[in-house]
Amino acid sequence: MGISFRKANEHDLDTIVKMLANDPLGSKRERNERRLPDCYKNAFQPISADPNNELIVACQENEIVGVQQITFTPYLTHQGGWRATIEGVRTLSTERGKGIGSELIRYAIQRAKERGCHLIQLTTDKQREEALRFYERLGFEATHEGMKMKL
Amino acid sequence: MGISFRKANEHDLDTIVKMLANDPLGSKRERNERRLPDCYKNAFQPISADPNNELIVACQENEIVGVQQITFTPYLTHQGGWRATIEGVRTLSTERGKGIGSELIRYAIQRAKERGCHLIQLTTDKQREEALRFYERLGFEATHEGMKMKL
Repeated sequence: MGISFRKANEHDLDTIVKMLANDPLGSKRERNERRLPDCYKNAFQPISADPNNELIVACQENEIVGVQQITFTPYLTHQGGWRATIEGVRTLSTERGKGIGSELIRYAIQRAKERGCHLIQLTTDKQREEALRFYERLGFEATHEGMKMKL
Repeated sequence: MGISFRKANEHDLDTIVKMLANDPLGSKRERNERRLPDCYKNAFQPISADPNNELIVACQENEIVGVQQITFTPYLTHQGGWRATIEGVRTLSTERGKGIGSELIRYAIQRAKERGCHLIQLTTDKQREEALRFYERLGFEATHEGMKMKL
């Protein structure tokens, strides 16, 4: 498929935000404006400065076709084990159904192993039934309730 | 109730690990040994050194009666919003049913607001039915599937 992965840089933000907004749930909560809103630039700084956060873009022929964020967290539980958490997985709308999402998740699993994590986890909105089946096919199990509270 | 909260220090680890192990699921995966295993001391270092992780103990009359870890994560999604994630919430077995767990979660909510988070979240094992109801009473909604994969 010729997909490569790298950390995102600030010049990628326009494309990334378009992908986040071009999604049934994302369209309600993101700002897809002609000029990139500062809130995204401001949010990118602490992500890129934190060694425990990796905003990853998938590229095909130098074009960004997917994105995800991987967070590595140290815990005392499980005998002091690190975990990887995946969030904000999106594929370019014109490139869906070509396996890019699976490649993104496989890359996250590889990074989690490289970082010595004993577990990789994510939460997926119960409205996204296809996403649930997608992650199950990749080996995830819905053993937990993902509970949220807006502040 | 006279409960106070503070960040854990290395001297608290013995008591914290006993709480993590004294739990139906924790008893299978933690090492509650007379001498604290090094794995817990080693895990404590990156937690305490990371400004985005807070291992919090609840104290009553200078005794530790509860513990939780709060992780603050910057994301691009939700217009670049920070989230707080709660993990490893435990109350001393002799002090259960006295509202200490609720106080821990209320403290986490307060810290999340202080840190400017737009969302607070956690996952709870579907085997812990009481925990699900406990978090629902505190205002969390089980809108997501919590998916995990062991590595």
